[in-house]
Amino acid sequence: MAPIRNARVLFSSVPKDFPVPGETTVYDTSQTIDIDTVPLNGGFLIKTLVLSVDPYFRGRMREPEAESYSSSFPLGESLDGYGVGKIIRSEDSAFPAGKYVYGPSLPHQEYSVLSSNPDSDMMFIIEKDPKLPWTAFVGVAGMPGQTAYMAWKEYSNAKKGEIAFVSTGAGPVGSMVIQLAKRDGLRVIACAGSDEKVKFMKDIGADIAFNYKTTDTREVLKKEGPIDIYWDNVGGVILDAALEFTAVYGRFLICGMISGYNTGLKGIKNLALAYPKSITLHGILIFRLFSKYKDEFYATVPPLLASGEIKYKEDVSRGLETVGDVILAVQEGRNNGKAVVIVAEE
Amino acid sequence: MAPIRNARVLFSSVPKDFPVPGETTVYDTSQTIDIDTVPLNGGFLIKTLVLSVDPYFRGRMREPEAESYSSSFPLGESLDGYGVGKIIRSEDSAFPAGKYVYGPSLPHQEYSVLSSNPDSDMMFIIEKDPKLPWTAFVGVAGMPGQTAYMAWKEYSNAKKGEIAFVSTGAGPVGSMVIQLAKRDGLRVIACAGSDEKVKFMKDIGADIAFNYKTTDTREVLKKEGPIDIYWDNVGGVILDAALEFTAVYGRFLICGMISGYNTGLKGIKNLALAYPKSITLHGILIFRLFSKYKDEFYATVPPLLASGEIKYKEDVSRGLETVGDVILAVQEGRNNGKAVVIVAEE
Repeated sequence: MAPIRNARVLFSSVPKDFPVPGETTVYDTSQTIDIDTVPLNGGFLIKTLVLSVDPYFRGRMREPEAESYSSSFPLGESLDGYGVGKIIRSEDSAFPAGKYVYGPSLPHQEYSVLSSNPDSDMMFIIEKDPKLPWTAFVGVAGMPGQTAYMAWKEYSNAKKGEIAFVSTGAGPVGSMVIQLAKRDGLRVIACAGSDEKVKFMKDIGADIAFNYKTTDTREVLKKEGPIDIYWDNVGGVILDAALEFTAVYGRFLICGMISGYNTGLKGIKNLALAYPKSITLHGILIFRLFSKYKDEFYATVPPLLASGEIKYKEDVSRGLETVGDVILAVQEGRNNGKAVVIVAEE
Repeated sequence: MAPIRNARVLFSSVPKDFPVPGETTVYDTSQTIDIDTVPLNGGFLIKTLVLSVDPYFRGRMREPEAESYSSSFPLGESLDGYGVGKIIRSEDSAFPAGKYVYGPSLPHQEYSVLSSNPDSDMMFIIEKDPKLPWTAFVGVAGMPGQTAYMAWKEYSNAKKGEIAFVSTGAGPVGSMVIQLAKRDGLRVIACAGSDEKVKFMKDIGADIAFNYKTTDTREVLKKEGPIDIYWDNVGGVILDAALEFTAVYGRFLICGMISGYNTGLKGIKNLALAYPKSITLHGILIFRLFSKYKDEFYATVPPLLASGEIKYKEDVSRGLETVGDVILAVQEGRNNGKAVVIVAEE
């Protein structure tokens, strides 16, 4: 077969604050690939089906010399992230043609040659639940849902009747946390940045849901708290409010601080309450919990999604050309549900 | 016997920033007591022997309506704090005359009538180790030493070969932490605010000791870190430096933040490193660890002090009239060793 287009999304320049679609990332169609003859070098060729766009992307859009937990996107090369692809050709018996692969570093291009990493269990063959779309497997049944599930199990020490407060409660992480907390018998306070998101948080069981842009978080927590568990995806003034209105022995699960990703983080003023309140705080990174909970997660969560016992919401866009806009929407909180990009149907 | 003087230290006004001896606290000799006839109401009368002056005093020098983990000092009444007294008369069989009592709320006056609290194990009869002065029992063998010992046992998860960083390493808490870390086989970095304190920290085993006023904490930790455990007594920029140069899975034991007690705390900028580094942070309050470790502490620590295996340093002053100055010295870090006040010999 002749070479065909292999469109991709390039990382073109480091954003000053918010990413600029078409400038900091560029959709590029100049590359071609011959899928029958491209050398595999012991690896395998995938056709990309779905890709996830996540808040942590902003942290990777940086100068390469700045250290972080995740590598920077290489300038002039394709973005990469969580995704699912169909294996078209393979020289790796662990990743045979016809199967589907899930992994954290799928290039944002239509076709890619990948090689397995024997030191990591983060990329693997994945079975599709027939009742769920592939998009779910990069969202509520992928990294975000796993982050929520695994860290909640590991660190929340949740007890029936306690009060949990969840930020970004309409996103794929927060909405899973809300539902896990409800399943454990907690009262749940949740916030997000639009009235539509507030409605969704109520639909999935939040006892108190509010729009932090129009309602003062401190007033809500003063009235409805003190809280026992705080799940933080935002940092800044909401984290400070949670510290102020936590109960003694409060557990803080720190998963992200998107309030500071684009414009710099506000200093946290209330951390001095850690000792009078005997607070415990845990920083969460999925890599470090994954092996322990992987099997349990896949045995538990997809069936609960398929049966509707755990609900989720996706904000689906189609085509690699939408990735730049989706990245910005996620940083601005304009997505309504887990942001996923369908690159191709099977 | 005729009434005698019962001198005391009154809390007179809330400090604006640093306490002002003679203004925010006043030494008062107008009160008298008849120690033979003063009603005990089921309690007991003590002669105060030693009192502890601690950093947390500043937090209690506040308006009564401000909530905190410790009660505010009542305006116009005696200060109170950790101390040891000799029981002179008693109507409480659990606190018989002739014995010595240790407790967290001994009034800063020469004589006091106390009553036991059945809900608290914080005040109790204490046996003196003949090789140790009473002052040690409000310092390295009292609340500060207990705070260090109990929280280190509970939260440090220390492993041989790891690196610990200790702030206020010449004080009674920090110097105990340094020595516990060394006994557990760790490498210890410690800081304090004078060259004399640096010398003491080296004498008790710190591998790296520096004066944070003349040496950049970030430079030290960049060179000698990353650290595995940080014991925080100061907050502010030193805590931020520790967050920056912690290893993955760093444990942060937050015991106090004296950098902010008098002039307000700087916002913590680097807490967003909690998730990439999978940091765990524990707020420490002695009340909540005391019952679990009390017996172990008294069986272990006083003998190690008496034998010289654990060293300590005291900054002893004499007479209740010195309390106001000692409070200020502690807030300014001018004390050299645990600040204790000898009120009376037996």
